[in-house]
Amino acid sequence: MANTIRASVIQSCTARFNLSETLDKFESLTRLAKERDGTQLVVFPEGFIGGYPKWSTFSCFVGERISEGRDEFVKYYNAAIEIPSPAIDRIAEVSKATGVFVVMGVIERDVGTLYCTAIFVDPVEGLVAKHRKLLPTACERFIWGQGDGSTLPVVAKKFQSSVEPTHTVHTKISATICWENFMPLLRTYYYSLGTQIYCVPTVDSRETWESSMRHIAFEGRCFVLSACQFATEKDYPPDHAVADANNRNPDNIMINGGSLIVSPLGKVLAGPTRQPEDILTADLDLDDVVRGKFDLDTVGHYSRPDVFQLKANIDPTLI
Amino acid sequence: MANTIRASVIQSCTARFNLSETLDKFESLTRLAKERDGTQLVVFPEGFIGGYPKWSTFSCFVGERISEGRDEFVKYYNAAIEIPSPAIDRIAEVSKATGVFVVMGVIERDVGTLYCTAIFVDPVEGLVAKHRKLLPTACERFIWGQGDGSTLPVVAKKFQSSVEPTHTVHTKISATICWENFMPLLRTYYYSLGTQIYCVPTVDSRETWESSMRHIAFEGRCFVLSACQFATEKDYPPDHAVADANNRNPDNIMINGGSLIVSPLGKVLAGPTRQPEDILTADLDLDDVVRGKFDLDTVGHYSRPDVFQLKANIDPTLI
Amino acid sequence: MANTIRASVIQSCTARFNLSETLDKFESLTRLAKERDGTQLVVFPEGFIGGYPKWSTFSCFVGERISEGRDEFVKYYNAAIEIPSPAIDRIAEVSKATGVFVVMGVIERDVGTLYCTAIFVDPVEGLVAKHRKLLPTACERFIWGQGDGSTLPVVAKKFQSSVEPTHTVHTKISATICWENFMPLLRTYYYSLGTQIYCVPTVDSRETWESSMRHIAFEGRCFVLSACQFATEKDYPPDHAVADANNRNPDNIMINGGSLIVSPLGKVLAGPTRQPEDILTADLDLDDVVRGKFDLDTVGHYSRPDVFQLKANIDPTLI
Amino acid sequence: MANTIRASVIQSCTARFNLSETLDKFESLTRLAKERDGTQLVVFPEGFIGGYPKWSTFSCFVGERISEGRDEFVKYYNAAIEIPSPAIDRIAEVSKATGVFVVMGVIERDVGTLYCTAIFVDPVEGLVAKHRKLLPTACERFIWGQGDGSTLPVVAKKFQSSVEPTHTVHTKISATICWENFMPLLRTYYYSLGTQIYCVPTVDSRETWESSMRHIAFEGRCFVLSACQFATEKDYPPDHAVADANNRNPDNIMINGGSLIVSPLGKVLAGPTRQPEDILTADLDLDDVVRGKFDLDTVGHYSRPDVFQLKANIDPTLI
Amino acid sequence: MANTIRASVIQSCTARFNLSETLDKFESLTRLAKERDGTQLVVFPEGFIGGYPKWSTFSCFVGERISEGRDEFVKYYNAAIEIPSPAIDRIAEVSKATGVFVVMGVIERDVGTLYCTAIFVDPVEGLVAKHRKLLPTACERFIWGQGDGSTLPVVAKKFQSSVEPTHTVHTKISATICWENFMPLLRTYYYSLGTQIYCVPTVDSRETWESSMRHIAFEGRCFVLSACQFATEKDYPPDHAVADANNRNPDNIMINGGSLIVSPLGKVLAGPTRQPEDILTADLDLDDVVRGKFDLDTVGHYSRPDVFQLKANIDPTLI
Amino acid sequence: MANTIRASVIQSCTARFNLSETLDKFESLTRLAKERDGTQLVVFPEGFIGGYPKWSTFSCFVGERISEGRDEFVKYYNAAIEIPSPAIDRIAEVSKATGVFVVMGVIERDVGTLYCTAIFVDPVEGLVAKHRKLLPTACERFIWGQGDGSTLPVVAKKFQSSVEPTHTVHTKISATICWENFMPLLRTYYYSLGTQIYCVPTVDSRETWESSMRHIAFEGRCFVLSACQFATEKDYPPDHAVADANNRNPDNIMINGGSLIVSPLGKVLAGPTRQPEDILTADLDLDDVVRGKFDLDTVGHYSRPDVFQLKANIDPTLI
Repeated sequence: MANTIRASVIQSCTARFNLSETLDKFESLTRLAKERDGTQLVVFPEGFIGGYPKWSTFSCFVGERISEGRDEFVKYYNAAIEIPSPAIDRIAEVSKATGVFVVMGVIERDVGTLYCTAIFVDPVEGLVAKHRKLLPTACERFIWGQGDGSTLPVVAKKFQSSVEPTHTVHTKISATICWENFMPLLRTYYYSLGTQIYCVPTVDSRETWESSMRHIAFEGRCFVLSACQFATEKDYPPDHAVADANNRNPDNIMINGGSLIVSPLGKVLAGPTRQPEDILTADLDLDDVVRGKFDLDTVGHYSRPDVFQLKANIDPTLI
Repeated sequence: MANTIRASVIQSCTARFNLSETLDKFESLTRLAKERDGTQLVVFPEGFIGGYPKWSTFSCFVGERISEGRDEFVKYYNAAIEIPSPAIDRIAEVSKATGVFVVMGVIERDVGTLYCTAIFVDPVEGLVAKHRKLLPTACERFIWGQGDGSTLPVVAKKFQSSVEPTHTVHTKISATICWENFMPLLRTYYYSLGTQIYCVPTVDSRETWESSMRHIAFEGRCFVLSACQFATEKDYPPDHAVADANNRNPDNIMINGGSLIVSPLGKVLAGPTRQPEDILTADLDLDDVVRGKFDLDTVGHYSRPDVFQLKANIDPTLI
Repeated sequence: MANTIRASVIQSCTARFNLSETLDKFESLTRLAKERDGTQLVVFPEGFIGGYPKWSTFSCFVGERISEGRDEFVKYYNAAIEIPSPAIDRIAEVSKATGVFVVMGVIERDVGTLYCTAIFVDPVEGLVAKHRKLLPTACERFIWGQGDGSTLPVVAKKFQSSVEPTHTVHTKISATICWENFMPLLRTYYYSLGTQIYCVPTVDSRETWESSMRHIAFEGRCFVLSACQFATEKDYPPDHAVADANNRNPDNIMINGGSLIVSPLGKVLAGPTRQPEDILTADLDLDDVVRGKFDLDTVGHYSRPDVFQLKANIDPTLI
Repeated sequence: MANTIRASVIQSCTARFNLSETLDKFESLTRLAKERDGTQLVVFPEGFIGGYPKWSTFSCFVGERISEGRDEFVKYYNAAIEIPSPAIDRIAEVSKATGVFVVMGVIERDVGTLYCTAIFVDPVEGLVAKHRKLLPTACERFIWGQGDGSTLPVVAKKFQSSVEPTHTVHTKISATICWENFMPLLRTYYYSLGTQIYCVPTVDSRETWESSMRHIAFEGRCFVLSACQFATEKDYPPDHAVADANNRNPDNIMINGGSLIVSPLGKVLAGPTRQPEDILTADLDLDDVVRGKFDLDTVGHYSRPDVFQLKANIDPTLI
Repeated sequence: MANTIRASVIQSCTARFNLSETLDKFESLTRLAKERDGTQLVVFPEGFIGGYPKWSTFSCFVGERISEGRDEFVKYYNAAIEIPSPAIDRIAEVSKATGVFVVMGVIERDVGTLYCTAIFVDPVEGLVAKHRKLLPTACERFIWGQGDGSTLPVVAKKFQSSVEPTHTVHTKISATICWENFMPLLRTYYYSLGTQIYCVPTVDSRETWESSMRHIAFEGRCFVLSACQFATEKDYPPDHAVADANNRNPDNIMINGGSLIVSPLGKVLAGPTRQPEDILTADLDLDDVVRGKFDLDTVGHYSRPDVFQLKANIDPTLI
Repeated sequence: MANTIRASVIQSCTARFNLSETLDKFESLTRLAKERDGTQLVVFPEGFIGGYPKWSTFSCFVGERISEGRDEFVKYYNAAIEIPSPAIDRIAEVSKATGVFVVMGVIERDVGTLYCTAIFVDPVEGLVAKHRKLLPTACERFIWGQGDGSTLPVVAKKFQSSVEPTHTVHTKISATICWENFMPLLRTYYYSLGTQIYCVPTVDSRETWESSMRHIAFEGRCFVLSACQFATEKDYPPDHAVADANNRNPDNIMINGGSLIVSPLGKVLAGPTRQPEDILTADLDLDDVVRGKFDLDTVGHYSRPDVFQLKANIDPTLI
């Protein structure tokens, strides 16, 4: 059990697309997870900074966009952050102050295009990596661009054992955002780099999500930490789109949570939770990864490279 | 003037997503262009086969799709055609019977994904090439996939001179669909392959479109043949989305046409037309391409390859 | 709903490694599924012919095999069948007589090596394809060889609609055996060939299995038909290995079933069942595949071939 | 609207190749634009300093040059300026005095070669950048050299909002001279650096020019500020070449103007003007760039870097 | 044990290159093996018909042959047999009369070339196959030609079980002559065809031979039946070459025997014998092949076709 | 005799899966071989580092693994080493200090999979190559993965002659682990690269092993240096599996040794030894390889490439 660390997933939501309030929320939740639960790593949901404009259509129709949609995009564009930027600095400061490693979904602005990004912030080194979502889903395709192969990091991180303080635990951490989890070649790539703590910032709160998280944990022999937003109408600006414009109610659920933590053998360690704001914490015994690889190593003894080969292009693309 | 052929752009629309009626329309318009105007090449609009579901949202919202949208997609999926298929055979037969070369926008079905495709059909050789649109725009991104570099043909085609029947005119023909025309690297690639008859199946009927067609003709020193749909509400299934659901009217315009033909020096030879159904015909003197390249050859003496290089990947992508 | 067929998964077990009795069982279960439920396709579990020697070790130790294990292998070898062989003929006859398409797990003998194989038997054409498991798991590795890329069929099959008898339903059928379902590259390959009816002969009766079947159905946008053996000690030869040799009991469960049918959106249509012998039947509306591909086509619009490419080697291997 | 600045294009001409008079003209026009219209940025035409020797051939023939041409070049050479030089200082002083940012076409002398250059002069920092035209057109090729990749700046500049004085507007400014606007790779490069205020010093006064300016604004989602010379025969030295030497007339038009300002959606905000001397001014709402990038970002979400890549070599060339 | 047959290897020699005497010897030894030992299959040594001219040089020197050598070759040529021929008929009659399957080494004459051949003679079907040695060794190269890929048979043969008379035993039989046993690709090819009774007509009587036979049995998981000549000087014509011409002695050993039978696990079942004339007989339990393949199937589960592939060309060579 | 070097095989065992003690053992044995026998090359057995878990089953049964087996795997996984790693550095230091070239079997850890590997360590260059076992046998298949074609080195190494110190001996060295020696295509590949010193780290201590080593030496015309572990129960952790759990005895033999050295003509030069710890040393006259190739060169004059071709794929496999 010496190879154990403690980790948390945070179920919460963006504060009305307000950057400063959302950063405050981040800080208080991270401090709570640290002080109350002794966590060493937290995963925040997709688009936690910048927000997830659920139910919006940005006034897009096949073949037409109208000016209301463009104005809405200007607001969303301005709510996004650049990397690096003062917001990133703030996150790094909290990470440093608490000693907690942070994986978080943010909306990233780069020249004219927004990206749905996950950042990795280390208490000592600050921002160490980012991952841009490779494929936005459906309507997301007109607000976010596509990441390329150059931001697919698996981050090596040493933690102090949560069980034996003198013992150092070596881990590898990745992030896969929302429906990227349905891209088997991407998952295989992460497995091949040895991911052990497979973080999933998401906004998919379907009932089927738990099945996929359990499958991936089992298939990849890794811990899966899925953090979903839980948001109600009051968590959005008052004029934001909702499911039923005729029945607006501040307490109507917009995104239904379902955050959970799964072990490398597919066992649910915590959650799924449907609480509006919740911190799920679990002890991750990294030796469970080895126990799982014993009979299933999708990228080692359980692959057939003579029949199937995966080629990855991780060069950054030029213009 | 010996190096002249006669070509037409067809302004029309899909018949209520009905394949058989649309093929009939294709046949009668092609025969008319041939018999009345003596045309040798016709360009049909984007999505002429399969249809362009203007104003539809397929019930997509950021973060949600509902079952109505999925059912609508099933209908649209079933209206698309495979390549090859009996519909392609029918087009090839008409091409053969009339001796007219056909460039046409179709919705192509390939396993689970639809593509917005342009086909090239030769009177003698039948289907000779296809081009899949590289980048659907906004809402199109949830109904169409992205083409890859393997379907970017520039087709060499010999015609009989429309002026001196014993003379053979050598031409090169390409197709660029709708907003692909705003991809400068794609255009440059087509220029580099020597396109002379730059066909543009489109549904963009904005007033600005003419400017872009003139610019491209001038920049690329090629004839631009832009064929746009013109459609009213009665040309769509009765339950189809419209601009204003409270004011449905069979004669409301859905797509406003604007087809035109431009010379390599940027001169408008025909159109833009706003007629519901129209055939624009012009004589294309291929020597005008040479006249234009005299002082501007974007991919030759007017390039700076020491400063800017374009790399194209035209391999088909694997899975 | 016209694009609907009716299909069944059979939960049962091999009859004490007895070929003739097992074929009788196959016949009576297939006839029952046809006559009672009107099924058009049945999926039988892994190793239904030949048997799955659960709990056996074949007296293998790291570095040693002893003669008892070799004798046990001789028995198991003799219980396997060649393809083709009289056993295959018998299966084809039942398929022909009932009009039911059969997917079944068999142990195949080829010179000195056994393979865990799935066969596809058509009522009209007889044996049309086979798939050899690519990677035996753990102890299976000393009784079965590895299949190669030449037996990865996706079989095109037309059925009469179960709803509108005059309508023809076009389907594509594949088979993935047991833990092959944890090979993401293999699954992706089958998706790329357009599998719609994804059959899963298995003996994995873990509680986590349902999660994986739901994930795969959702990821691949296909119907998943998972047929597991249910076997008790009395279904094995009296001297066969058991979980606890000190507590032999004819009713002790050896393999615990869990067969189920899942839709392309991840919804469980039937099962999981824990009955010793059971037939689960569901109507498969093939249009659900299109509804699912609308927003997720892992091998089409939801892939990133510029970042990840899968290469498949499907040539048969020489010696 | 807070993100708005006010900008002008100046339609005018060089004063008979006279440097001092031309600088006076520059000063008075700039002061007028500032004082009357409240402008914050002005764009002057191509070769405003140094002059554009329209209709001259410099006595060049294919295979021969004669001494008259050489003498004419000596005059032209002497009319050009070095960078830096007192002329530049004068421009900087006016900029400082008025607070107006200046983009201007000048003929630059560098040892033995002349370049057609655009300079960027900041009210505070003075000369901040220059761009040398990459490709002279036709006869220009025997009076001007080719710039290299080291002078392709996109200048970041903060302005005070013209609407809310306390608000700072961040902008990016580039310059593309005359037919460089028909170099799609160069334009793409500028887009990739985030140009928002795309300045066009030119002498192309064709009717087709408006089309190209509108196309570029739309394609690049930037404001296009095109400043063209308007010149008559009297604006040139008396012995200068003219269109028809037999019909010299001081009022004959040599360059016909056509300056204009276009928005990022392709809408003409001001012009095209055919006045001999004119100042066109418009308010530029920088949020329009974001509104435009919403559905078209040629170098972000609307590119296909997997198919087309642009490589830029921006190193200065050695001798 | 039901899958058992009884087989013998014959250690003997050619009778002074005398065909008729040698055929008599063959008949008496075969009858003895049948009548005394109940054998069902016999293997005779290399060159049993035709003879193995040990110690001869055929008067060859590097660069020269002299007429004595030519005359010696004439004698040897005449002692060889054609296939078919009366000698073959005689062998087939004995086989039929005794019911014994015969594998025998013969010197085959085909127009101008001799081959070192093994024949397979069935009691019912007569001559069923032949194999020509692929590579003569050293001096053999000037008396024998090279066989090609068309005579590499593995013969399927059903025997009556020697243990349970009502049981039929299915076997596969091959022959590999002398140093062909040091050709790993040839052996692999035979393994791939499923050889179970691997016959070895030879004249190699070295002490190391036993090691190789044991290795091959183990590697190929087959029974190895190695039949070697045992000959003394008196078994050769009086003028035949000998080891030491100065010490001719009728009892001097020319070829030292060493025939043996090995099981698929490498166990020696009979021999090696050094008796001048000997019949070694063993019961071959064909299930031992399966027991052996359990953990080693060189051409099945114990191969790596993704790394190593063997291509065999078995077309007959043209002239 | 000038072309002679002196080489040793080491018979010993891993020290209770203890890395540090095992490295000490390696050092003292290597120093002894050098100082006492003057050896220049040592071969250590299979899995010398990491250990060979004889008699263990890792609690695997067909169809089931239990948690005890997974925990046992964690221990075994942790006992393995990465390449490179400090353990490799230690081996290289000893090699450097003694001047002895080392071939050694180690258990290699690579992300989630273990490999049975042979390393080649040069006194000057350190680690120069490694070979991963291509095919684990039976139970080994659930603890080790399969190597690919990219680690099949034949290492060229110059030694000082052990007879004439001024003479340089050129050699080629390969390693084939345990039952890989029953892969005829692998052996042929090594022969084709010119292996002369064919090293065999093994744990096969069967009586038949000597036969195979002699055959391979003869067939390949190379020196075979086979080093086997000799281990008793006390050399394993106290709770390790044994042959008979009811009769544990510290002196019971687990692996029975049998190391030996064979010449290219199949002659045993040293061993087989059954001593618990032993160093066998022999002088290897490399000219014997040539003497053997005179009449048998399996990959040269004694091959039939017109009939049999071996294709090797030595590219590293991707994921």
